[in-house]
Amino acid sequence: MMTSQQVEQIKRAPAVPGVLPLILHRWSPRSFSDRDVSPEDLRTLFEAARWAASSNNEQPWRYLVGRRGTDTHAKIFESFGEWNRAWAGSASVLLLGTAKKTFTPKGTPNEYAMHDLGAADATICYQATALGLHTHQMAGFDHEVARRLLQIPGDYLIGSIMAIGYLGEPAALTMDYQREQEMTPRTRKQLNEFVFSAWEQPADLG
Amino acid sequence: MMTSQQVEQIKRAPAVPGVLPLILHRWSPRSFSDRDVSPEDLRTLFEAARWAASSNNEQPWRYLVGRRGTDTHAKIFESFGEWNRAWAGSASVLLLGTAKKTFTPKGTPNEYAMHDLGAADATICYQATALGLHTHQMAGFDHEVARRLLQIPGDYLIGSIMAIGYLGEPAALTMDYQREQEMTPRTRKQLNEFVFSAWEQPADLG
Repeated sequence: MMTSQQVEQIKRAPAVPGVLPLILHRWSPRSFSDRDVSPEDLRTLFEAARWAASSNNEQPWRYLVGRRGTDTHAKIFESFGEWNRAWAGSASVLLLGTAKKTFTPKGTPNEYAMHDLGAADATICYQATALGLHTHQMAGFDHEVARRLLQIPGDYLIGSIMAIGYLGEPAALTMDYQREQEMTPRTRKQLNEFVFSAWEQPADLG
Repeated sequence: MMTSQQVEQIKRAPAVPGVLPLILHRWSPRSFSDRDVSPEDLRTLFEAARWAASSNNEQPWRYLVGRRGTDTHAKIFESFGEWNRAWAGSASVLLLGTAKKTFTPKGTPNEYAMHDLGAADATICYQATALGLHTHQMAGFDHEVARRLLQIPGDYLIGSIMAIGYLGEPAALTMDYQREQEMTPRTRKQLNEFVFSAWEQPADLG
């Protein structure tokens, strides 16, 4: 069985000249250690998220923070399916992201609400990496249960739930497949599969 | 009239201990210089975007890159309304982001497509900042014109258009309001307006 240090190494994307290490080193573990995220570090994550870009500077993101041992952590956990229950409860912080569907104060629809929540979430992830924390976003939960338990108004879209904490040992994972995934290198598409000069014609990037 | 160097200073968010400078220093100018983004730097942006997080590792993002002087740049420009036409044509690169609405190969809906495109876009923005480039995302364009001219299939959502280039002088902007905005500090919500322990109850972040 690999140690968490070995896992950290194999999850790093290969170095590319000029690409920020924190972008290459961010990955989504399932094994989190007992160590708590400090209130200072948690605050730093949101001080970073504040400055994300958004359409019309609406800043549609609203976050519900569940620290281990709180009601909110328990309610977020309650919304998980079996797959995420198997690992995510051990994270120090469970963060539920939501996005306001309309512009303030006009009330017109904001078609970029989820897009901009995604940008704020990514900002949190990179800031977390810089602080030695790990993050893992999940879509696998019951949105309606989360909405009801956490009393999220209808004017807010539900985004991802993000587990935040320190990396744990892969041996702590109880599901075989999750333990295997924890020890498998990350993969991504090639540039010619998603960067086009015209639709589905790979861009010439030198 | 401020110089571009002075503008760069006033647009920087105040330093916060521990927060990554590139998150605080990213901002969205409207004045771009004549200088072209090199093919190497453009490639580096996508080498970074590759490693963004996505639901099920679907990587739903597909980008259409329009470099100045190309057909694609002209077609993206054609979709702009008057407000963005006033400034965005001068950017070295116009990038249109799209997101596949369904999971491959299952074909089931991907409710996180726009969220994950937003994460990839944010990744490009931070990588660009690290390279000394500037970015400005726009929602103000005719999605149907863009879809038709660029032949984007119905299975792909249209995200933002991102101008990418080097910062120009504010004096080059022809619309008064845009010139004023270029020289005004950025503003953001306070943490207690978007970080909650329960709905609309500010989290205690120490």
